[in-house]
Amino acid sequence: MIPIVSIVGTSDSGKTTLIEKLVPELVRRGYRVATIKHDVHGFDMDREGKDSWRHKQAGAHTVVISSPQKLALIRNVDHDAELAELRDKYIQDVDIILSEGFKRNPQPKIEVYRKEKNRELLCTKEDNLLAIAANEPFHIGVPCFGLDDARGMVELIEEKFLKGRKSSQVQLKVNGRDVPLSSFVQKSMIGTVRGMVSALKGCESPQRIEIRIMED
Amino acid sequence: MIPIVSIVGTSDSGKTTLIEKLVPELVRRGYRVATIKHDVHGFDMDREGKDSWRHKQAGAHTVVISSPQKLALIRNVDHDAELAELRDKYIQDVDIILSEGFKRNPQPKIEVYRKEKNRELLCTKEDNLLAIAANEPFHIGVPCFGLDDARGMVELIEEKFLKGRKSSQVQLKVNGRDVPLSSFVQKSMIGTVRGMVSALKGCESPQRIEIRIMED
Repeated sequence: MIPIVSIVGTSDSGKTTLIEKLVPELVRRGYRVATIKHDVHGFDMDREGKDSWRHKQAGAHTVVISSPQKLALIRNVDHDAELAELRDKYIQDVDIILSEGFKRNPQPKIEVYRKEKNRELLCTKEDNLLAIAANEPFHIGVPCFGLDDARGMVELIEEKFLKGRKSSQVQLKVNGRDVPLSSFVQKSMIGTVRGMVSALKGCESPQRIEIRIMED
Repeated sequence: MIPIVSIVGTSDSGKTTLIEKLVPELVRRGYRVATIKHDVHGFDMDREGKDSWRHKQAGAHTVVISSPQKLALIRNVDHDAELAELRDKYIQDVDIILSEGFKRNPQPKIEVYRKEKNRELLCTKEDNLLAIAANEPFHIGVPCFGLDDARGMVELIEEKFLKGRKSSQVQLKVNGRDVPLSSFVQKSMIGTVRGMVSALKGCESPQRIEIRIMED
């Protein structure tokens, strides 16, 4: 599971600015980063008149634009997704996710606080507050960094979520949720599934197996 | 597997215009449609200065914007993906995919031909040519429709790919490829996997199960 750290704070407190400092510091250390931005008001990403815009205007539910270097996707959804759902459905090939907003989600958070803008913190330690980025010191039992101290925050993120992290060999989701598996269960599941699949024609050496079962 | 029909033709032959006619006709009949546009030159989708643009500029590999009605994703990729890969990795919740371009992919194709623009067809029947949309008749053993005959083309697509289509209960991918399963194998796989998973704590009534196994 890719770890998620949420950058939270009131509007205009400097969340995007902090993300602009954290991302390059993570990249410099060799990590691939995804960001997730919550936009309650909807957004307008495509440009009028472009082919992809015309596809969407014509009524397409999903539009994908694919090039050799970049891929873009726009789709309709029917609910405001949680971070874990966004990670599980849309994000691959990265080491860590930073979200902007999503303060009501359970993931670890860094709160941005600017004394000119804010009167008190949004989160308490109990909200899974990992750290505070502020221009005023706080002593509430979580580390407090200066607004520019990307290095300090990234060291904490690295220490907590990225070091010695091994991706598990088996991922299991049941009814949309990740199920943590002990090493014994993982091994037994690998044996059963590999045995079953490798009996099928053309699947004699399965290195990567994905199974989805949906009930009617 | 979600069926794919590719709309192919020379540049400026009217592929986007045809897609603008086919999508609403499919939607009118109750289908959800995704489109995939191939853009060899890369594209610029986000707007300078927006938060998501700032995330990407800062070096994020993937940026997701989530709202209650729409979701957008931009990510780096390291190769020009085939249609099947795009479908399998990024597209869910639709009944059919129309691609614009991708004429070298093996999927069924509708070629757009405009006598003012084209001198000959790009595809032959052997290229999995499903139909021709043209303002000049062709007699090469595949149906030929007028450029505006969205209804005729959608009827053909419906007949070939959408009618009586039941989504299979089990999807299996091995080494990235879909493996077709007989009804017996599906049943036996459902039994084995459900049995194994429902023995785990908290997974007593699995309605949707997803397993991924990766070899080191």
